[in-house]
Amino acid sequence: MDAKLRDRLKTLSTATITKQLQNRGFGNIGMAGVKPLVWGPERMVGEAFTLRFIPMREDLVGKKIMARKDHPQRRAIDDCPKGAVLVVDARGVTHVGTAGDILIARLFTRGAAGFVSDGGMRDAEEVKLVGLPVFVAGPAAPPGANAHAAVDLQRPIGCGGVAVVPGDIIVGDGDGVVVIPKALAKEVARDGTEQERLERFIKMKVLQGCPVVGLYPPGDKARAEYQAWVKAGEPEG
Amino acid sequence: MDAKLRDRLKTLSTATITKQLQNRGFGNIGMAGVKPLVWGPERMVGEAFTLRFIPMREDLVGKKIMARKDHPQRRAIDDCPKGAVLVVDARGVTHVGTAGDILIARLFTRGAAGFVSDGGMRDAEEVKLVGLPVFVAGPAAPPGANAHAAVDLQRPIGCGGVAVVPGDIIVGDGDGVVVIPKALAKEVARDGTEQERLERFIKMKVLQGCPVVGLYPPGDKARAEYQAWVKAGEPEG
Amino acid sequence: MDAKLRDRLKTLSTATITKQLQNRGFGNIGMAGVKPLVWGPERMVGEAFTLRFIPMREDLVGKKIMARKDHPQRRAIDDCPKGAVLVVDARGVTHVGTAGDILIARLFTRGAAGFVSDGGMRDAEEVKLVGLPVFVAGPAAPPGANAHAAVDLQRPIGCGGVAVVPGDIIVGDGDGVVVIPKALAKEVARDGTEQERLERFIKMKVLQGCPVVGLYPPGDKARAEYQAWVKAGEPEG
Amino acid sequence: MDAKLRDRLKTLSTATITKQLQNRGFGNIGMAGVKPLVWGPERMVGEAFTLRFIPMREDLVGKKIMARKDHPQRRAIDDCPKGAVLVVDARGVTHVGTAGDILIARLFTRGAAGFVSDGGMRDAEEVKLVGLPVFVAGPAAPPGANAHAAVDLQRPIGCGGVAVVPGDIIVGDGDGVVVIPKALAKEVARDGTEQERLERFIKMKVLQGCPVVGLYPPGDKARAEYQAWVKAGEPEG
Amino acid sequence: MDAKLRDRLKTLSTATITKQLQNRGFGNIGMAGVKPLVWGPERMVGEAFTLRFIPMREDLVGKKIMARKDHPQRRAIDDCPKGAVLVVDARGVTHVGTAGDILIARLFTRGAAGFVSDGGMRDAEEVKLVGLPVFVAGPAAPPGANAHAAVDLQRPIGCGGVAVVPGDIIVGDGDGVVVIPKALAKEVARDGTEQERLERFIKMKVLQGCPVVGLYPPGDKARAEYQAWVKAGEPEG
Amino acid sequence: MDAKLRDRLKTLSTATITKQLQNRGFGNIGMAGVKPLVWGPERMVGEAFTLRFIPMREDLVGKKIMARKDHPQRRAIDDCPKGAVLVVDARGVTHVGTAGDILIARLFTRGAAGFVSDGGMRDAEEVKLVGLPVFVAGPAAPPGANAHAAVDLQRPIGCGGVAVVPGDIIVGDGDGVVVIPKALAKEVARDGTEQERLERFIKMKVLQGCPVVGLYPPGDKARAEYQAWVKAGEPEG
Repeated sequence: MDAKLRDRLKTLSTATITKQLQNRGFGNIGMAGVKPLVWGPERMVGEAFTLRFIPMREDLVGKKIMARKDHPQRRAIDDCPKGAVLVVDARGVTHVGTAGDILIARLFTRGAAGFVSDGGMRDAEEVKLVGLPVFVAGPAAPPGANAHAAVDLQRPIGCGGVAVVPGDIIVGDGDGVVVIPKALAKEVARDGTEQERLERFIKMKVLQGCPVVGLYPPGDKARAEYQAWVKAGEPEG
Repeated sequence: MDAKLRDRLKTLSTATITKQLQNRGFGNIGMAGVKPLVWGPERMVGEAFTLRFIPMREDLVGKKIMARKDHPQRRAIDDCPKGAVLVVDARGVTHVGTAGDILIARLFTRGAAGFVSDGGMRDAEEVKLVGLPVFVAGPAAPPGANAHAAVDLQRPIGCGGVAVVPGDIIVGDGDGVVVIPKALAKEVARDGTEQERLERFIKMKVLQGCPVVGLYPPGDKARAEYQAWVKAGEPEG
Repeated sequence: MDAKLRDRLKTLSTATITKQLQNRGFGNIGMAGVKPLVWGPERMVGEAFTLRFIPMREDLVGKKIMARKDHPQRRAIDDCPKGAVLVVDARGVTHVGTAGDILIARLFTRGAAGFVSDGGMRDAEEVKLVGLPVFVAGPAAPPGANAHAAVDLQRPIGCGGVAVVPGDIIVGDGDGVVVIPKALAKEVARDGTEQERLERFIKMKVLQGCPVVGLYPPGDKARAEYQAWVKAGEPEG
Repeated sequence: MDAKLRDRLKTLSTATITKQLQNRGFGNIGMAGVKPLVWGPERMVGEAFTLRFIPMREDLVGKKIMARKDHPQRRAIDDCPKGAVLVVDARGVTHVGTAGDILIARLFTRGAAGFVSDGGMRDAEEVKLVGLPVFVAGPAAPPGANAHAAVDLQRPIGCGGVAVVPGDIIVGDGDGVVVIPKALAKEVARDGTEQERLERFIKMKVLQGCPVVGLYPPGDKARAEYQAWVKAGEPEG
Repeated sequence: MDAKLRDRLKTLSTATITKQLQNRGFGNIGMAGVKPLVWGPERMVGEAFTLRFIPMREDLVGKKIMARKDHPQRRAIDDCPKGAVLVVDARGVTHVGTAGDILIARLFTRGAAGFVSDGGMRDAEEVKLVGLPVFVAGPAAPPGANAHAAVDLQRPIGCGGVAVVPGDIIVGDGDGVVVIPKALAKEVARDGTEQERLERFIKMKVLQGCPVVGLYPPGDKARAEYQAWVKAGEPEG
Repeated sequence: MDAKLRDRLKTLSTATITKQLQNRGFGNIGMAGVKPLVWGPERMVGEAFTLRFIPMREDLVGKKIMARKDHPQRRAIDDCPKGAVLVVDARGVTHVGTAGDILIARLFTRGAAGFVSDGGMRDAEEVKLVGLPVFVAGPAAPPGANAHAAVDLQRPIGCGGVAVVPGDIIVGDGDGVVVIPKALAKEVARDGTEQERLERFIKMKVLQGCPVVGLYPPGDKARAEYQAWVKAGEPEG
């Protein structure tokens, strides 16, 4: 992933990004039920590397299967590229884990950008200390194999009710996780930066006592005032 | 699929099959929320041919994509083999369709054994007249592309909360749909037939006034009586 | 249960009964998610005999446990008194059964008044032919032991989100199942009969073209007219 | 509502209507969880007349309030215009009723086109006999006031997860209920008729053994064939 | 709102208030799924100013509609009176926002007492810094217009499953948000103060080792002891 | 409960315990929807003492019933043995409390080991200060009697979707609460200690850059290296 694009996206809130995507007709790009367990000081930004679970069946799990060199979950952890975000389709099943502190530590040492799942996280207290941004449904002690069987790497998946295609850009912050279709990442970054400048101006005016009607979204007068403010070097007050 | 096996399985209720699978340690093989829309006079039995949806995203659906020769949903309909059951992973989304009367008619003309989805069915009244067994969450008018994008053919999926691997045996009747892992189909068929004979005996005794304690499951005395009944040619009363 | 009371209650709809209970301050007495599988020609009326399930755990189920003479589910079937309704607390788990055709047949031969569960029913097609009124969440093939362990007979339970105390009166019809606290059964029966007569009058007026405002509930004028109609022998039109 | 428009819409399935609305960018117009209780022989078509419930609070319900001449629910029943469909926002609460046989009978005598609610229906067996099309979540005995307080007439509402603005066109059939924004009704009717003709052709071809790829949606060749078929007077085979 | 009443209510926990309302027969006045995002050091207390959303439809949202001077959401923010709590009916939809940091900042500068919604909050990290108490379902990045259309100001609404009538008193603390019907606010405040004194006494006794049976609720002996303690000036131990 | 066993179990994470139970065929022993409100510095470990609620009915709650000496909830609080964990079956109803700060303080003074409920907690801010570990669905202001009636002490229950038999061992930490069937507690403690040592080794290797395939679960080579590491006194790096 382009380093400049990554850096630019790190400056944009997920709220801004979803607004930019709404402007382009994308209405289902914010994950439901996927919350930050640990992140910061920067936003999580990276390309999606995907893993898919299906419901557990007794012949699809077990020690022998877990020990196979091509077991998709273990492969996902060892193969997730530097800078990528591992995104797991856990079908919204929250009462078992989809990883634990050992797997998260491995992802961290590989230089992954983060871990996202609409399922649970084991060893949550330990995971918070690893250093990798993690967004999940919440902590959950039981092993994933109680409810899941891993079946696919790098296929399009659903996570938190939204589509994730390998290579999409995943961004996470305090509001949760959003997905930018790969082809739109550059323009979202560009226009999002402008949007955030405009919103900085609007918030400044609001704190000075202006009503939001006519200001947010800006009418002609507010827009003119904004352009003057930009020209003037964006003074603070 | 072996014709004898198919015929044998058609004589077994899904209740019997799930009991046989429970005996073998399989506890999650009956689909939740998947109900018969139309079936009969025989049970639906066939090998699973699978199709997978992910959540709709605006760049993953649309007329151009639907018109592609490799569109997974259309391919699924044209490629589903004679005697197979098309099983669709619709992530339990019930308020849009996952097929309609045209696609079901095409499956029927190809000799498919049935259609199963944990999503909705469009044109439900028309579909009831086609002649193909259909098990879905219920009728739903809106087109599937309002909520789904088709992504995969013949991969393991979840449907109604249970795993379905291509080639598994799918059986449907008034109690819904169950999945027999391929490797177990023969023994389930064999032991299920014996189970149903025993239960016929037990029900006969119950209707004659016997208590279920000691009879169902049978104690030593009941089992001896059963064996005598079998020897005697299973007389009716 | 008093035969006269039973006969009187059979003439009252569950809608009437819940209205009478609302008048007495009872607002949570209609089961949610419990639907008629088979009933009629009369309403189901009987005293509650209760059975309670908890979530399955591997050491609480199995063939040995099922074969015990004191297994609560089997005991419930063999001990449910003539005229009683067996009510099962299945914690709203709908994808497995809570009984099947053999157990329902046994209840029927014992003269039970019906079977109620907020879980599923196995062998639903067979069960419809037995002759016993059955109200459940719906058909479901898998055996109950996949999700439940039976633990208690004749304790207060929840079913469909409402309390059921052994001895309460259970009534079922096309609108579902309602519970009358034992102490209120007589007055509900008495006042319900009067309510249904009034509603017969109101419906007659409505079909003649009267507005519902002033009539339902009846104002002074409508009430006077009603009393005259009663005096006149409740003429049809 | 224009009689010609009504008649034209009665010939179109809700599946067709939702497809036409999808073509115009409307993706959330089919109600979830609202099922036919009784309808036919024609489709239900009429302008929306709306009623809104909020959660019950003890000071917002009761006999005095129900008896008021301006009680919104009673007003809705007495004021719903001939040919209109009364649509009720019951917040998806299914375990209590939102009307019963008396209110449905009154709507019927007034010439209403139907009743739609995402809540329950009391006296469901009686309601099926009245003659009015009714689409609800299902039967439910308890009075609505156990869970609802009526607050508004003729305001925009949500029902089954979709917006309903007074005056929108409501259509119901075996697939459920859909909403046509008023401004789009004419063009949906016009283009829907053409769509159904095309789909009749496609289904005919499918029953003759054609694959759906290239036919549905039609490619150039199929479209030419279709136009010839139209020119030829739409012959049956 | 009366300043004394406000100050008195700030001393009462929401647990106490719901108990007082239970004593008066009100059983559904605590919002479900509405959690504190930020509050303190004092409790949030204010009169309800209400805003209502319905499900999004493409013709009911968009830039033009958002820019209208009478757009209900923007109006709600600019018109919410000093000291009032803006309460939003978001139908429990949690995966999109119902406001963000700019709107919350505007409410704050206007002197509003707080913001309550059963939907999500955008820019949650920023919102925590504004200074306004906020109770919502949780953070959510996507703009509200992905799922909602604003339709009404100052009508009775549902929020978190409870009724909110404009002018009701809204109180929020660590246990969440409760609604006091306007007419009851004074007596709840008065009796709640007495209740909290009694519970202070009870907790003191409990920490000294007293059993709760006979003490909570207090029997005759405990009540006498309590009255003596009050007379003695409520000594600490 | 044996003091050594308790001490040993305090060293094991709930993730480890659920893995040990999975190894023994137990797949449903981690509570869903039950989160830590307050715990630490040690894990919560104790034998289950159980309390069961059913849905509220107006004749089963109220001041008189609450004041009875045998009221199950009050009895549970006064009778819960030193070192035990009070576990409450609240049927997953989260919007009302199942205890508050007074009851939790009483449990604390009695030396209970903790409180677990799949319902809500009143006075959550106060409860955090008492000193007792508490695991619940979350804070909730309204009194439990708005939704629950207490009916049983020391019967098997469901909590968070798992079975709890009186005397089972309950363990809680940041990942939530798990249940160890009594008969398995010793062997789980023993083998869990060995598992945690192995995982310490694995995590050390992972942080040194080893892939997880071949290491977790360990292949022959990794297992040999582990045994050497144990022999060497488990050196840190």
